[in-house]
Amino acid sequence: MKRISLSFQRIDQSPIDLATKFHGFLMEQLEPIYVDWLHEQETNPYSMKVIHQKDQTTWMVHLLTEDAIKQILPPMLELKKVDLHGLATLTVQSVTMQDLSSEELFDLFNENQDQSFFTIQFQTPTGFRSQGEYVLFPTLRLIFQSLMMKYGRLFENREDIEEETLDYLTSHSRITSYRMETSYFKVHGKKIPAFKGKLTFKITGPSTLKAYANMLLKFGEYAGLGMKTSLGMGGIELEERKD
Amino acid sequence: MKRISLSFQRIDQSPIDLATKFHGFLMEQLEPIYVDWLHEQETNPYSMKVIHQKDQTTWMVHLLTEDAIKQILPPMLELKKVDLHGLATLTVQSVTMQDLSSEELFDLFNENQDQSFFTIQFQTPTGFRSQGEYVLFPTLRLIFQSLMMKYGRLFENREDIEEETLDYLTSHSRITSYRMETSYFKVHGKKIPAFKGKLTFKITGPSTLKAYANMLLKFGEYAGLGMKTSLGMGGIELEERKD
Repeated sequence: MKRISLSFQRIDQSPIDLATKFHGFLMEQLEPIYVDWLHEQETNPYSMKVIHQKDQTTWMVHLLTEDAIKQILPPMLELKKVDLHGLATLTVQSVTMQDLSSEELFDLFNENQDQSFFTIQFQTPTGFRSQGEYVLFPTLRLIFQSLMMKYGRLFENREDIEEETLDYLTSHSRITSYRMETSYFKVHGKKIPAFKGKLTFKITGPSTLKAYANMLLKFGEYAGLGMKTSLGMGGIELEERKD
Repeated sequence: MKRISLSFQRIDQSPIDLATKFHGFLMEQLEPIYVDWLHEQETNPYSMKVIHQKDQTTWMVHLLTEDAIKQILPPMLELKKVDLHGLATLTVQSVTMQDLSSEELFDLFNENQDQSFFTIQFQTPTGFRSQGEYVLFPTLRLIFQSLMMKYGRLFENREDIEEETLDYLTSHSRITSYRMETSYFKVHGKKIPAFKGKLTFKITGPSTLKAYANMLLKFGEYAGLGMKTSLGMGGIELEERKD
């Protein structure tokens, strides 16, 4: 998996509006046949997020499979300017790349893991649908379920997850603190209820369980969490441990 | 019901520590027989909260029944100083009183109510227990249930609530936005998980339902919400409508 980050002079537009525009621009850079294929996928092999810093706006695209890297990386590496139709034309100030290989993920899974507390930063509006309803407060079950589902579909060619593993993980995890707020995401004029902020949870139980959760979350930094991660929702980052 | 507010020069102590001390002080002012009786009640006929403003700290005591007014109001009205053993001795700067009569509540219930959106400010840590667990994210069901329970016990001498009414209210209500965080409350060295912040919800359905919710919430400004409202938890206030 690769993260490619393009930085621009800070843009005074909502990251949500920018994300949709960046997505449209990205699609224009790809082979039409590949774009058609992407539209048919239930789980996209890429995710993106737009983050405002003090002086910069950064657009991060995560390429989750070898095929996505082959199709999307070359045109992105050539970008000098980004034309967000109707909003702005942006000059690329810097490009950085990061890698997370399946070997590294596997190492995380196998290493001795004594970390019990995990803190997720929901950097962009994050949302779930459950039983036909939008979910405004995340549950640990929905968080793990989403990550397990994405991982299984992208790397194991499995449609469904092991419910038993999910049950075990959920029953050994507990939210200890949070600071969150609702944050609506707009797509094609439709407002999707979502949330942003920070959530800490504790995992009790064997260290393999903690290692598995850690692996899922590290994967989540690339894959995103929940709905519409290809459009800029569900951008998460793990906070460094303090325990 | 009466609210008696005592204001002091602002104290630089956590409102949570202050609340427990204020509570101890209040108990010392009452007849020991009445204090014993209070300890036996499942639902206390009083609630309190401690709020820090810019220059002042305000201690509010809500007297919910005629009996509580008779027992608690006279000693409170005489207070010139408050001795919070070990913390400070405070000089009362001002005393204010507010009333909310059952007639006023009843009028709220009967008036034509077209307000659909309600915003609750959880001013002090608010918590629920449900199925043996502490609840970190409130649900509208728990909010209404707590208020209906307190109202029924204090004014109708009913132990339980009408589940049908609660179901109807819950199924016609929906959280639309929030900004909240966890906030632990300490009692006798024990940390109780709770939350603070702001929550907005919408009620759809007949105006009598909205009027009933409005009445419950106005009552809640005096009674408090959820657990340990006599010790300073669950202090809420309705925000003025903006719709």
